[in-house]
Amino acid sequence: MQNKKGDTLFFRTPPSVLGYAAVGGKKESEGPLADGFDVLDTDTTFGEKTWEQSESRMQAICAETALKKSGVTPKELDCLFAGDLENQCTASNYTMRDLPVPFVGLYNACATMAEGLGLAAAFIAGGLAQRTMALASSHFCAAERQYRFPLEYGGKRTPTSQWTATASGGVVLGSVGGPPYVKAVTFGRVIDYGIKDINNMGAAMAPAAAHTLLTFLKDSGRQPEEFDRIFTGDLGAVGSTLLEEICEKEGVKLTNHSDCGLLLYDREQQQVDAGGSGVGCSASVLCSHILPQLKSGKLREVLFIATGALMSPTTFMQKESIPGIAHLVLLGSGK
Amino acid sequence: MQNKKGDTLFFRTPPSVLGYAAVGGKKESEGPLADGFDVLDTDTTFGEKTWEQSESRMQAICAETALKKSGVTPKELDCLFAGDLENQCTASNYTMRDLPVPFVGLYNACATMAEGLGLAAAFIAGGLAQRTMALASSHFCAAERQYRFPLEYGGKRTPTSQWTATASGGVVLGSVGGPPYVKAVTFGRVIDYGIKDINNMGAAMAPAAAHTLLTFLKDSGRQPEEFDRIFTGDLGAVGSTLLEEICEKEGVKLTNHSDCGLLLYDREQQQVDAGGSGVGCSASVLCSHILPQLKSGKLREVLFIATGALMSPTTFMQKESIPGIAHLVLLGSGK
Repeated sequence: MQNKKGDTLFFRTPPSVLGYAAVGGKKESEGPLADGFDVLDTDTTFGEKTWEQSESRMQAICAETALKKSGVTPKELDCLFAGDLENQCTASNYTMRDLPVPFVGLYNACATMAEGLGLAAAFIAGGLAQRTMALASSHFCAAERQYRFPLEYGGKRTPTSQWTATASGGVVLGSVGGPPYVKAVTFGRVIDYGIKDINNMGAAMAPAAAHTLLTFLKDSGRQPEEFDRIFTGDLGAVGSTLLEEICEKEGVKLTNHSDCGLLLYDREQQQVDAGGSGVGCSASVLCSHILPQLKSGKLREVLFIATGALMSPTTFMQKESIPGIAHLVLLGSGK
Repeated sequence: MQNKKGDTLFFRTPPSVLGYAAVGGKKESEGPLADGFDVLDTDTTFGEKTWEQSESRMQAICAETALKKSGVTPKELDCLFAGDLENQCTASNYTMRDLPVPFVGLYNACATMAEGLGLAAAFIAGGLAQRTMALASSHFCAAERQYRFPLEYGGKRTPTSQWTATASGGVVLGSVGGPPYVKAVTFGRVIDYGIKDINNMGAAMAPAAAHTLLTFLKDSGRQPEEFDRIFTGDLGAVGSTLLEEICEKEGVKLTNHSDCGLLLYDREQQQVDAGGSGVGCSASVLCSHILPQLKSGKLREVLFIATGALMSPTTFMQKESIPGIAHLVLLGSGK
């Protein structure tokens, strides 16, 4: 049995991050993290005819690049965990047509990258696999027409709304290898504070992020300031403030918190309102910004908490509230 | 490390099935497996106002019943794996609002029950959890309006089409307990034979079922006739014939194959065309028909292979082919 306390799994032999890749579109190529991306397609179509095919192609490029950087072939992968935002997760499904690997399809909205990374690490730590991969993506154009309005409609955005990233992140893990390491994972619970505004998903997800973070701190007996940084994704400006307020009410002051939704874009220059969002936002920030700094040793130990809003356009029209979820992964430059 | 051969995980200490439950609607209450169901709501609304809420309520009843029969409280569950067919998997997401358990959301279409059961078993076998649950559902009325036409439209069905079950299945696993046991799992790969007919999903899924079954037989070195029965779900009439044909071409004759889509309903009396389908079909057949016979010892060892068609209405309109996936679980009345 792994060392399990509360909801958190502490891995006795932390799996190694063998490699990772981040792929993005035009807006991501103009953002502050562009240099950390492996591939940027300023056309955003990735040479495909539909936005859905573009997303699959982007994800395939990401998987291929991450594998290449890891020195791992698809044949050597025991299992691949992937998900996205498209209805029926088709971006991942169609990517997997060309990747002959046992496939576990996931859906936890924008928490999918941490969910997949947690599962991929757990499988290795539990002796269920030697090499695994976590993969996730979102595409602005596919998401806008599915969740809000087709781009051609020219709908007006609210100031609390977030910008769905056109991005993909992929991480290859192995039982043997150098840093960074996945040291622990807390799979989150579904938390619903009754938020019903589909243009304010940061507020819907903040309580879940707080719940998972507070659970991990309790399970580990550690303090927030012990970590170089606590990354959430993607609460945006509104949700980040809310997270800090909820934590403070519980007696936990966050002084080293950054949100992936606020890192990926320059909010003022790039007109993304409350920040970035989408499965690909936290996935690509992880692979372009967080993991490289852990690999170089610039960051020693961080928490990566991806957050998801679990509604659909149907439940929104039915006036249901928006449940949130957040999964946490503890990453370190040492074991 | 578990005993892994090829794509198959053979569990050294097979997790125990502590309990299970099947819940269904009106059509399921009139079918040949009705007696095996724990709860049947002949109104099919489960007392809710929308079909989506009905599905969540049905899933919640299923989870509650399975836990009660297992003698396990939600607090004792380490992790719950769940999925469904609704866009953004909202049936599961909303069910989980009232289940305070770490939640891993899944999507592999109608293969989700085997996917979840495989993960739930792997987590226990890998020492990552002591008690887990796999939960899955579909609802005819929610699925019809999402995938095909709203019921009010009165659209005509083709003879190759299948009937989405209004049903849910839930299985609670533990590290310690009596039979039945989950002995092995093969997570499948995405297979695409280029089928484009959305009303003939059995044909789209059959190649994936064949691939996973043949992989397992190779990995285990066993013959099909060594198992009391090989259950697929849900290929229906068309897909079942195709599966048997593909296997025969590979030199494997199936003489003990049953399809969950052909077990749940009386095809002639109940007008379900090519048979039942939907996540809840194989999930509820597992929990109303297969597991009880393993528990009583009537069945000694069976293969449960749930199959999923990984398209969406969007990819269908874009004239994409339908990729398939199948996950296999080896269940036994002894270890």
